[in-house]
Amino acid sequence: MKHVFSSCLALLFSALAAAQTIQSPDGKLALQVSLLDSIPHYQLSYGGKTIIQPSKLGLTLVNAPSLRTGFALKDQQTASKNEPWNPVMGEQKTILNHYNELAITLSQPAQQRDMIIRFRLFNDGLGFRYEFPQQKNLNYFVIQEEESQFALNGDQKAWWIAGDYDTEEYSYTTSNLSEVPALFDKSYDGNASQTIIPMGLQTPLMMKSAEGIYMNIHEAALIGYAAMNLELDPKNFSLKSHLTPDAQGRKGYIQTPFNTPWRTIVVADKAEKILASKLILNLNEPSALTHTDWIKPVKYVGVWWQMFCPGQGSWNYADIDNVHLGKTDYKKLTPNKTHAANNANVKKYIDFAAKHGFDGVLVEGWNEGWEDWFGKSKEFVFDFVTPYPDFDAKMLTDYARSKGVRIIMHHETSAAATNYERWLDTAFRFMVNHGYNAVKTGYVGNIIPRGEHHYSQWMIDHYNRVIQKAAGYKIMVNSHESVHPTGLHRTWPNAIAAEAARGTEFETFGGNNPDHTTILPFTRLMGGPMDYTPGIFQTKLDYYQPGDTRYVKTTLVKQLALYVTMYSPLQMAADIIDNYDRFPDAFQFIKDVAVDWDETRILSAEPGDYITMARKAKGKEEWFVGGITDENPRQTSIDFSFLDSDDYYVATIYEDGKTAHYIHNPQQYHIYKVLVNKKSTLKQALAASGGVAISLKKATAAELKSLKKLRSK
Amino acid sequence: MKHVFSSCLALLFSALAAAQTIQSPDGKLALQVSLLDSIPHYQLSYGGKTIIQPSKLGLTLVNAPSLRTGFALKDQQTASKNEPWNPVMGEQKTILNHYNELAITLSQPAQQRDMIIRFRLFNDGLGFRYEFPQQKNLNYFVIQEEESQFALNGDQKAWWIAGDYDTEEYSYTTSNLSEVPALFDKSYDGNASQTIIPMGLQTPLMMKSAEGIYMNIHEAALIGYAAMNLELDPKNFSLKSHLTPDAQGRKGYIQTPFNTPWRTIVVADKAEKILASKLILNLNEPSALTHTDWIKPVKYVGVWWQMFCPGQGSWNYADIDNVHLGKTDYKKLTPNKTHAANNANVKKYIDFAAKHGFDGVLVEGWNEGWEDWFGKSKEFVFDFVTPYPDFDAKMLTDYARSKGVRIIMHHETSAAATNYERWLDTAFRFMVNHGYNAVKTGYVGNIIPRGEHHYSQWMIDHYNRVIQKAAGYKIMVNSHESVHPTGLHRTWPNAIAAEAARGTEFETFGGNNPDHTTILPFTRLMGGPMDYTPGIFQTKLDYYQPGDTRYVKTTLVKQLALYVTMYSPLQMAADIIDNYDRFPDAFQFIKDVAVDWDETRILSAEPGDYITMARKAKGKEEWFVGGITDENPRQTSIDFSFLDSDDYYVATIYEDGKTAHYIHNPQQYHIYKVLVNKKSTLKQALAASGGVAISLKKATAAELKSLKKLRSK
Repeated sequence: MKHVFSSCLALLFSALAAAQTIQSPDGKLALQVSLLDSIPHYQLSYGGKTIIQPSKLGLTLVNAPSLRTGFALKDQQTASKNEPWNPVMGEQKTILNHYNELAITLSQPAQQRDMIIRFRLFNDGLGFRYEFPQQKNLNYFVIQEEESQFALNGDQKAWWIAGDYDTEEYSYTTSNLSEVPALFDKSYDGNASQTIIPMGLQTPLMMKSAEGIYMNIHEAALIGYAAMNLELDPKNFSLKSHLTPDAQGRKGYIQTPFNTPWRTIVVADKAEKILASKLILNLNEPSALTHTDWIKPVKYVGVWWQMFCPGQGSWNYADIDNVHLGKTDYKKLTPNKTHAANNANVKKYIDFAAKHGFDGVLVEGWNEGWEDWFGKSKEFVFDFVTPYPDFDAKMLTDYARSKGVRIIMHHETSAAATNYERWLDTAFRFMVNHGYNAVKTGYVGNIIPRGEHHYSQWMIDHYNRVIQKAAGYKIMVNSHESVHPTGLHRTWPNAIAAEAARGTEFETFGGNNPDHTTILPFTRLMGGPMDYTPGIFQTKLDYYQPGDTRYVKTTLVKQLALYVTMYSPLQMAADIIDNYDRFPDAFQFIKDVAVDWDETRILSAEPGDYITMARKAKGKEEWFVGGITDENPRQTSIDFSFLDSDDYYVATIYEDGKTAHYIHNPQQYHIYKVLVNKKSTLKQALAASGGVAISLKKATAAELKSLKKLRSK
Repeated sequence: MKHVFSSCLALLFSALAAAQTIQSPDGKLALQVSLLDSIPHYQLSYGGKTIIQPSKLGLTLVNAPSLRTGFALKDQQTASKNEPWNPVMGEQKTILNHYNELAITLSQPAQQRDMIIRFRLFNDGLGFRYEFPQQKNLNYFVIQEEESQFALNGDQKAWWIAGDYDTEEYSYTTSNLSEVPALFDKSYDGNASQTIIPMGLQTPLMMKSAEGIYMNIHEAALIGYAAMNLELDPKNFSLKSHLTPDAQGRKGYIQTPFNTPWRTIVVADKAEKILASKLILNLNEPSALTHTDWIKPVKYVGVWWQMFCPGQGSWNYADIDNVHLGKTDYKKLTPNKTHAANNANVKKYIDFAAKHGFDGVLVEGWNEGWEDWFGKSKEFVFDFVTPYPDFDAKMLTDYARSKGVRIIMHHETSAAATNYERWLDTAFRFMVNHGYNAVKTGYVGNIIPRGEHHYSQWMIDHYNRVIQKAAGYKIMVNSHESVHPTGLHRTWPNAIAAEAARGTEFETFGGNNPDHTTILPFTRLMGGPMDYTPGIFQTKLDYYQPGDTRYVKTTLVKQLALYVTMYSPLQMAADIIDNYDRFPDAFQFIKDVAVDWDETRILSAEPGDYITMARKAKGKEEWFVGGITDENPRQTSIDFSFLDSDDYYVATIYEDGKTAHYIHNPQQYHIYKVLVNKKSTLKQALAASGGVAISLKKATAAELKSLKKLRSK
C-alpha cells in the first residue's frame, strides 16, 4: 500500500508539476525539481530507479511567514563544472570537481521574497543548499527548523547512531530503518554531554537499499549554521533535517546574503565508491589561505594513553577538588606523583619521537586546572598558558627543538567556549613563542554559554573562529568533541583533523565494537580526517592492573592497518611508548607508514564488515595497504594491480598470527617480506577483528635476488 | 489578625530560639538572629520597634540538599569597626565605616556542610551576606534560588518599579505595598529588552512606614552572583530575594570559597538620612587599584542628544538595513546627510568644550554598524575600532588634544556581550592609541549569549570583567543598560558612573514623570553615581519639529539643580550645544558646578516630592546648592548654616521665573547674586517641576561692597 502511494506521488510529481531536470555528467543520476502545491520538491533517480521519492524542501521561521510554501518559480539556471584541484593534504593528489548544476529561484509573491535552491549533481551524488539573497524583505530572520526531506524508496539497511545535540561518541547500530524504534533506546550509552533527539539519526548516515544501492546523507561546508541531524519517520522510510537549537530553542540567526551548508547524498552501486567519493570536499570552497607551506602532516606520540590505563598516570598534578586559577599556589600543593606531563616523562617521549622519526609529542595535562576541570560547569577552568610546576615549558621547548621534534599543544576547554575565546590570542601567542605549531582542542562536558549545544549555531561559529584565528598564527588545529566535519579542511587546511566520533579512548570506557572501524570511514570520515589515535599494541588493560577486564577490541595487526584505513594527515602512535619497544618489528610499520597521499584505491569494502585500501605516499614511490575485518575472521584478496610501475616492490606484510584473535590472542602476528608487482595477488587471512598491513617499496637489486616473489595471477 | 500573627511569631522567635543579638553603635538598631525549626531567621528593630519581623534566610540548590534548613549553630563571632576612609571621588572627602558585626556559623550535620551568615549593623542600617567556606562537601554548587526574606512590619508606602531581569528603565509608581497587585501591570512600559518578574520589585526599593520610618532595601558588592530583585507577598507585606536566572533557569554557579553580595537595609527616621547613608559603599571592599591618579572627574558635552531630537541627527551614516562589518564598503554608500558624528560637528563640540572648560566630548555613532545594530540579535554588530568615513579618528584626536579636550569613547554593544569580549583588548588598545581615557558602554537589546539576561550571573561577571580590564588600560567606564550599581565604585573607582535607570533619553520615549528625579536618589543612586545626562535647556521638542508634543518634564532651572541633586563624578551637559549659546547666563551654572565633592549636606528631602542638597566642591572653598520639586510648586527653605567659614559668600541664585512651569513656561528663569553667610536663610519658591540652583564663592572685597546681603535668621 505504501509503495502504491509512493508510486502515485512520483507519478503525480512528474505529471502535474513543471519539473526542472538535470543529470549527472555520466547520466546515471537524474534529478527532478518541481513545485507541488507551491512547495518545492526534489526527486532523485539512479540508473533509472527512483532512490529519493518526491521530497519537500524549505524552512520554517520564528515569528515570520515560512520559507516553505507559497512559492512560484521565478528563474532557473543550469551550469556545469569539470575542474581538477589539489588539496594541501589529502587522500589523493588531485581531485576532480565535476558536476551539472541547477539553480532555481523561487519567489513568494505574498511576502515579496526570493530564495534560491542550488543543486549540484555529480556522478557520485547530489548536493543542494538554500541561498538567501540580500533583499528588501529578507535581511534578517530566525530559523525555527529546516524542513529538508529525504524520502527514501524503501526500508534501507542503516549504520546509525542516535541523534544528539552534543555528542557523536556512540557505537553504531546496524539495522533496517524500520527497526530503529525498537533499537533506539539501546543504541546509546552515557556521555559527558548529551542531548538525545527522539528518533534522531546522525549524519553522515550510511544506508544500503534492498537492491544494493549505497547511499550516504550528510552535509558539506557547515558555516554559520547549526549542525544537522536527521529525524526518521520509520513507517514511511523518510528522513527530515533537524537542526540543533540554541538555549532558547531557536535554530539559527541568519543575516542575508547567506547560503546554508550543502545537504549531500552520496550514491553508489558499490560500497568502495562511497569511500572514494570526494563530493563533500568538492562542495566546499577552495582554500582561504594563500600560503599553506606551514601546514604539514604530523605523525606523533604523546603523553595521553597512559592516563586511560590503570595506574599509569593522571592529567592532574595534585589530588584536590577545588582550584582557583591564579590563586591556588601549585608550588605549595602536594604532588600526587601520578602526574604524567612531567619533565622527565615528556623528555622520554621527545627522545622516543626523535629516535623513531616522529614529528611531534602531544602532552596532555601540562597546564594548571585539571584537578576540578570536569562536570562543574566551571567557566574559568583553564588559562591555557600556565604550566604545572613539574612542566618546564621553556626547557622542554628547547629540548624538543634540539631533537628536531615539536611539542603538540593541548587546549582542553571543558566546553567553556566563552573562556577559551577570552584566552585564545594569549594561548596562541604562547604557542608561537614556544614553537608549537599544532593544537589539540577539547570540548568535554556541557557548553558554556550555558544552554548552547556542541552543534548549535553559536558553537559552529566558535569552532570556525578558532580555526581561522589559529590560521592567523600558522597553527594547525585537531579538535576533539567538536562537530562532525563537513569537508571544511578544503577551505581551512589547517583544520588538520578532528575527533567527533567514538575514538580509541572509548576502548577504556564502554568499548568500541570490532566493526566500529569498518563503519567509521562510511560515516564520520566522510566529512574529514579523524584523529582516531590507533596504534595500541597492549590491547588488554589487565597488563597494567590484574583483573581489569577492559581491552581494545582488535588484534595488534588491525591497529597497524588502521593507519591506512582511517585517513588522517595527523596520526598518532597512541600507545605508551614502552609498548613499542616490546614489539619493535611491528612498530616499524607505524614508523614507515605515510600520512599524506598521492593516490588512494579502495580495494574492497562493506560497511560493518571489512575495508581494504591501498595508498601511495605523497611524493614517494611507496605504497601502503591496510585491511581490516569486523568480529568475523575472513580472507581478503589483495590485487596489486594498483601499483603504477612495472617494477617489483618489496612488500613487508604484517599479518595476524595463525591463532590470533582480538579477545584470545590479540598480539600474535607474523611479518615477512616478499616481492610483488602489479600482477601479484595475495589471499590474506584476517583474524577475528584482525587485519593486515603492508608496506611496499621498490625493490633494490639485492632484494630482487634475495627475496621470493609472490605468485602472480 | 495578621498583626496578631506577626506579633506571636516575634514573641515565639524571642521565646523559643537561642537568639544572638547585636546593636548598632548608637544602640538604636537591634538585630536578633536565631534558628527556628533549624532555619536561620533574623529580626530587626529600630528604636525598640520591630521593623523587620522574623525573616528566613538561606538558599535552595539545584540537584542538592538546600542550604536553608537542617542547620545547627556551630559558632558565633562578634566584631566592630570604626574606621574612616577616603573615596577616590565621591560626595564627601571622608566616609566613616562604623559597625558592629555578628557572624554565625551554621552547620548541617546531615550534609556535613557549614555556612556563615555575616551581619553588619551600622547606625544607618543592616547588611548581611552568606559566606560559603571551602570545605569537603561544598566545593561547587548551583543556586536554585536565594530565599532571603524581608518580612516588613506593615503596609509600607513604596516607590517602586516592576521587577525585571533586563531593565530598570521604568517610571516609578508610588503606592502602598498592598496596592501593588492592582497597579503592577500598569507600572511598566515597553523596553528594548525586558523580562518582567510577576509581583517583582526592583532594588533599591524605597519604603516608608505608617510611623514615618524610612527603609531602603538593596544589595552591595554584586560580584560573581546574579542581581537581586524582590518578590512581594502583598498580603503579608513580606519581600523575598529573587535572583536573575540564566538561559537554563539556574541562578548561579558557585565555587567555594564564596561570599554573596550583601543584602542591605538602610533605615532612618528622616528621608535626608537615607540619602546621606554610605552603608552600601562601606560594605564594598577598598579600592583594588593602587594607583588611581588617572581617575578624574569628567564634565562633558557630546554628540548625543541631537539624535533624540527630531531632524537633528542620526547615529547611522547611511540609510541601509543590512551591514556586514568588514565587507560593507561604507565609502561606496550614499551618506544619509544626517550622520551626527562627522568631523565638522565633532570639531564644533570640541571647540565648545574647550571654550567652556569641559573635559570631554562624547561621540556616539562614530563607528561602523549603526545601520542595523538594533533588534536583530546580531552578534558581530560592532568592532569598536572602525570609524565611519566622515569620522577621522586620528585628526579629531589630534584636534581635541590641541584644544586640551579628550574625546569620550562610545562602545555600544547591542547587548552582544560575547562579541564585545572578543574585541575588548583591541578596542581598549585603540582608545589608548588615540588618547581616550573614558568609555561609555551600552547594552541595548537582548543579551548574547542568547537566553542570558542583563542581570544574570554571566553578565554580572561580564560587566565586572570589562571594568577590571579597562582598569588595566587606565580607562574609566560609564556603563549604560548594565545592572543596578551596588557600590562597586569603591573597589573599582574607574567604574566612574552608570545609567541603569530611566535617564534623560526617556524624555523622548515615554517621558519621565516630574517626580522622577526626586525618587532616583532614594533608589537607583543608592548604589552609585548615575550618568543621568541633565542640562536640557530646550525642553520642548516642537522647537525642532512643529507639532512634536514631547517635552522634558522640568523647568530649565530644575535641569541646573540636577547637577547637585544627582550625584555623579561624570556629568554631561547633555543638550545640543547651540542651546547653551541661547542661554549663556544659565549655562554659567553648568560651567561652574563641581562634580566631585568634599562635603555633602542633605538639606531637605522627601521621596517623590522634593530634594535640596548642598555640596562643597573638592579642594575648593565653593559650595553648590540644588533644589528640585515634583509636579507641585513649593517653597523650600535653605539654611546656609552648612557653610564652614564665617566669611560671606557670593551666592549666584538661579531660580524659576515667577510664572515658570514645566509645561507652560519651562524656560523662564531669574539669576541674581547676593551675599550670604552661615547665618543666612532663603525662602525659595520652586515652580511646578522646577528647582533652584545656587553657586557660592567667597566674596571679594569688591563684592562685599557692591552686593546686597541676604537676610539672616
